[in-house]
Amino acid sequence: MIERVFILGTGLLGASAGLALRAAGFNGSVIGWDKDQRQTQDALRLKAIQSIALDPFEAAQASQLILLATPVFAILDWMEQLAPVLNASHLVTDLGSTKAQITAAANRLYNQPGQAAFLPGHPMAGKEVSGAAEADGALFRGAVWIFTGDTGPPPTISPSETDIGREWRQWVQAMGCRTIDLDAGRHDELVAWVSHLPQFLATALTALLETEVGDAPELKAVGGRALREMTRLGSSPYSMWRDVAYTNTEAVSKAIQALEQRLTHLRENLRTPELREEFEIANRFRKG
Amino acid sequence: MIERVFILGTGLLGASAGLALRAAGFNGSVIGWDKDQRQTQDALRLKAIQSIALDPFEAAQASQLILLATPVFAILDWMEQLAPVLNASHLVTDLGSTKAQITAAANRLYNQPGQAAFLPGHPMAGKEVSGAAEADGALFRGAVWIFTGDTGPPPTISPSETDIGREWRQWVQAMGCRTIDLDAGRHDELVAWVSHLPQFLATALTALLETEVGDAPELKAVGGRALREMTRLGSSPYSMWRDVAYTNTEAVSKAIQALEQRLTHLRENLRTPELREEFEIANRFRKG
Repeated sequence: MIERVFILGTGLLGASAGLALRAAGFNGSVIGWDKDQRQTQDALRLKAIQSIALDPFEAAQASQLILLATPVFAILDWMEQLAPVLNASHLVTDLGSTKAQITAAANRLYNQPGQAAFLPGHPMAGKEVSGAAEADGALFRGAVWIFTGDTGPPPTISPSETDIGREWRQWVQAMGCRTIDLDAGRHDELVAWVSHLPQFLATALTALLETEVGDAPELKAVGGRALREMTRLGSSPYSMWRDVAYTNTEAVSKAIQALEQRLTHLRENLRTPELREEFEIANRFRKG
Repeated sequence: MIERVFILGTGLLGASAGLALRAAGFNGSVIGWDKDQRQTQDALRLKAIQSIALDPFEAAQASQLILLATPVFAILDWMEQLAPVLNASHLVTDLGSTKAQITAAANRLYNQPGQAAFLPGHPMAGKEVSGAAEADGALFRGAVWIFTGDTGPPPTISPSETDIGREWRQWVQAMGCRTIDLDAGRHDELVAWVSHLPQFLATALTALLETEVGDAPELKAVGGRALREMTRLGSSPYSMWRDVAYTNTEAVSKAIQALEQRLTHLRENLRTPELREEFEIANRFRKG
């Protein structure tokens, strides 16, 4: 039974998870820690956490579930630091955007007999703004929550088959998510297309527009809803996406290059029947 | 006084204009015609128009305001056909997405003493779906409505300074729009960045994703809100955008090529500090 949850990293996602867990009926205690004190204070004020940990190691030891809700490199760092102080009574999980390196570390540092279990996770939800003050208990509702554990060689213990693992999966569903299990490598390839490419594309488009029309703010209003949507992700924080770019470079690079080629093709066919073909293929995406 | 409006082309935009005009308090009659009978029937059913014209030429002659709400090439075609049958008691205006060719045709075929006036217009609003059945009387609320008339050499009459022109501009404002006057060439350059580039980019991205992950519909759900937003415009109809591509080729081509270069730059810097710079420039866009 999970009675105590420790959220390490109480920014937008961590604080939202605290709120969502409470909204789903979790009655245990939720404690939080963040290297940025403002984040824990905001999370506390919003009741996303009930108390602020003084020492993250002690808080982790005193909890059954430890939720790592930082950017990917910080998750990898905390995995190294926490593994020696935890034991088989703990489940560690995370909200990291890329999963290959985290899942490899999970099988190296956790999931062996006598060790803490580690269940790599990734809720497909977010906002273009960061910080606990923007936390939203409904953020994960209707989203897909991907798990990529359960892939290590023997005698690796499957984290999803521990009591706490099973219970955590139930809480994730209670938060309104659909859970999917994927191989970590397949996860990273897939999200390169459906999540990372849209983000880096929005960044490139928005940076370009800032360069071209940024000195005429009244013109931004001209674009209307279409422009607002296509540039919303342009506000996303570098701190999170740097780690995605570093830990999924190959797949992201491949996806961006494919888009460059597709744009070149479209540009060269602005006045040929090929343009119709591109619109027809695109039109099928929502219907499929 | 505008007592009778003729909407030529009762698709999404034309029918929405009919509804918006009514909602703004217009009490005259609104008559509609479309080459596709289903569009006029849907528009009539939704009360976007009050009656269906049997003959578009007679309907135009019998109205004070003629609103051309078709794709650009059809607008140019109707401008040619209507000019000889109209006179100084008429104002023709349009909702076309590009303005250079339409404005040139307006100064060639209209706006001379004794002729009908033509005020080129472009409401910066739309949807990714087409058809009168999707019409929305609130579509233009809060949008910018650009006019590009008033640029011809003497003895050209300024359409905005005719009584009907002045009244039409008031109705546009009554529909909840902010009106802006721009040179037609400047309009086409500007919308290439803030409207056409986002559209063609969304088409390229969506066509690419359909090619890459289209055979796995369950994976589309994984992307969540960000993916939905970035691919919504992928559903836009070719019929409208073909004319944009043809009539604003140079500016659109320039904008797409600039984006290709920006994407290449970002891709080559996924692991360098340049990535931070791109995020910081993009972050400024919404704040500016």
